Amino acid sequence: MSEHLSIAVDAMGGDFGPRVTVPACINLLKQQRQLTILLVGDKAQIEPLLSRCPAYLSSRITLVHTTSVITMNDKPSYALRNLQDSSMYLALGLVRDGKASACVSAGNTGALMVLGCSLLRTLPGIDRPAIISAIPTQQDHCYLLDLGANVNCNAEHLLQFALMGSAMVSAVEGKPSPRIALLNIGSEEIKGNEQVKLASRLIQEHGSLNYIGFIEGDQVFSDRADVIVCDGFTGNIALKSSEGLARLIAGKLRKSFTRNLYRRLLGVLAQPVLKELQQQIDPGRRNGASLLGLQGVVVKSHGGAGRRHFEAALSQAVTDARLNIPSRIVEQLEQQLQQQPT
Amino acid sequence: MSEHLSIAVDAMGGDFGPRVTVPACINLLKQQRQLTILLVGDKAQIEPLLSRCPAYLSSRITLVHTTSVITMNDKPSYALRNLQDSSMYLALGLVRDGKASACVSAGNTGALMVLGCSLLRTLPGIDRPAIISAIPTQQDHCYLLDLGANVNCNAEHLLQFALMGSAMVSAVEGKPSPRIALLNIGSEEIKGNEQVKLASRLIQEHGSLNYIGFIEGDQVFSDRADVIVCDGFTGNIALKSSEGLARLIAGKLRKSFTRNLYRRLLGVLAQPVLKELQQQIDPGRRNGASLLGLQGVVVKSHGGAGRRHFEAALSQAVTDARLNIPSRIVEQLEQQLQQQPT
Repeated sequence: MSEHLSIAVDAMGGDFGPRVTVPACINLLKQQRQLTILLVGDKAQIEPLLSRCPAYLSSRITLVHTTSVITMNDKPSYALRNLQDSSMYLALGLVRDGKASACVSAGNTGALMVLGCSLLRTLPGIDRPAIISAIPTQQDHCYLLDLGANVNCNAEHLLQFALMGSAMVSAVEGKPSPRIALLNIGSEEIKGNEQVKLASRLIQEHGSLNYIGFIEGDQVFSDRADVIVCDGFTGNIALKSSEGLARLIAGKLRKSFTRNLYRRLLGVLAQPVLKELQQQIDPGRRNGASLLGLQGVVVKSHGGAGRRHFEAALSQAVTDARLNIPSRIVEQLEQQLQQQPT
Repeated sequence: MSEHLSIAVDAMGGDFGPRVTVPACINLLKQQRQLTILLVGDKAQIEPLLSRCPAYLSSRITLVHTTSVITMNDKPSYALRNLQDSSMYLALGLVRDGKASACVSAGNTGALMVLGCSLLRTLPGIDRPAIISAIPTQQDHCYLLDLGANVNCNAEHLLQFALMGSAMVSAVEGKPSPRIALLNIGSEEIKGNEQVKLASRLIQEHGSLNYIGFIEGDQVFSDRADVIVCDGFTGNIALKSSEGLARLIAGKLRKSFTRNLYRRLLGVLAQPVLKELQQQIDPGRRNGASLLGLQGVVVKSHGGAGRRHFEAALSQAVTDARLNIPSRIVEQLEQQLQQQPT
């Protein structure tokens, strides 16, 4: 039986705030009997939503009241200095103080990064945290990092991302030796920018990772790698461009299936197929991106996540906390030190 | 009536060589009566394919014989020094010597760039050529550059790409003032890396372009911009990741439409819709990426292009040559000089 766990939730984050976060929490509590939730946010907005909560669940929810919220327009540095009473800040503080094992927020990503670094600190040997998320592939899924936390990365950062990604995916997926690839514009050694080429050498020299070399953009959604590493600028562009293309295809299909009466009928018949497809390629289906490299578990939900998707982010946090991903990363890094010649 | 035009074709480039390039040339000649083609490549391979060509067309084909070919594995610098008798080198030489108005190749992109720069030189005011191609959008299409010619770009290069893209799209699409956007990981001014932020300022200060600001990856396939500018690393990743996702979706759809007998039947009925979709989002449909910034028209075809797609690349070259895109770019750059305070 799994041990008791407590997670802190920024109830105010995201496009919908408590309307989404509170019902998602209640639903998760129904499934996870050893879980308690610290809901951080505005009592006036949250309490009415909790009234629908069965009594046997409400005892496992603790409300931490604050009316202060970090908006999407707040600069992270401003939030760090001036919004220390905000729901996101307080939720991260609960992890720092050992009152929660993980924090989940659908709020301002930049602020979550900066506050996370300040409140929880990075792990020894890690310069910067990275955002990792699962993405769909033909057979199953793989993981991509960094998704936008670090705009400029040097080769050493990319090596750290590879080590962190390997540790996490090994734990979460039960794969002892995940295949690690670097995202590049060609698969030959001579291709790419300086940091990618140098990172490739560093990872090879490192020796503890199952490194399979460069992977091109068109291989991202294949099943060639378990963890794909890149800088945050590239990762963000790769993921969002693909989301854009998925939307383009959905739009074209919709148009195509409404052209005339016959097509409309066909569209009705094909509906289950299209719905299935939507679910399979929906990036939100696996909502919940982990901030790797902090001394604590922090999971970012899409800002536009609905109840079901926010619940997926909560589950991700529970998994990361139960597996104690930060300590897995430390182990992976220590393995590195032991393997290096002294 | 359009004037007579001559284009040089690297018959040996691409995965299929003359088997694809020669029939594509013959087909284009049928449609373009004022066109002659200089076919550069191995006589022994090309002549048997020309035997099927009607006599009234064959008079408009001149065979330039060589057996030397640049392979995909040849380093561009090696090709430049040692493969001056190759089909690609000779085809570009025909443009340099004024014997052809454009060159088309499906061969090694890096070699085409380096040989293009060396043989044709860049336009005055342009440091580096960029690769531009049309990509599908919800309503129509837009253009993305650079697609991989320049791995590292500074802000000045991005400005030059914007000027070149604007000049080309204005001419090709007949849009007097194309909307120019910079690809970035956020739409706010504070987002992105240093070169993107600086490029945004340079383009704004420049004043002659219809600049609409930053665009995120998920907006690439929307109809928000006519020209999207980024460095070659980012552009390559954005385009190829999207191609990868398109393949994922096609694969999932295929699987979904073969699950059982009913689904198979549905798949047969839905075939026209799926085929239509494939054509609409197929990047090859608009095959032909122009190398902008050279003193001559050079068009790169996908290496894996079939006959119809290679023909599209040939058409692109004819269009670029007829519109004299290089001189349009020079005009755009001169406009810049006139507008700047002295």
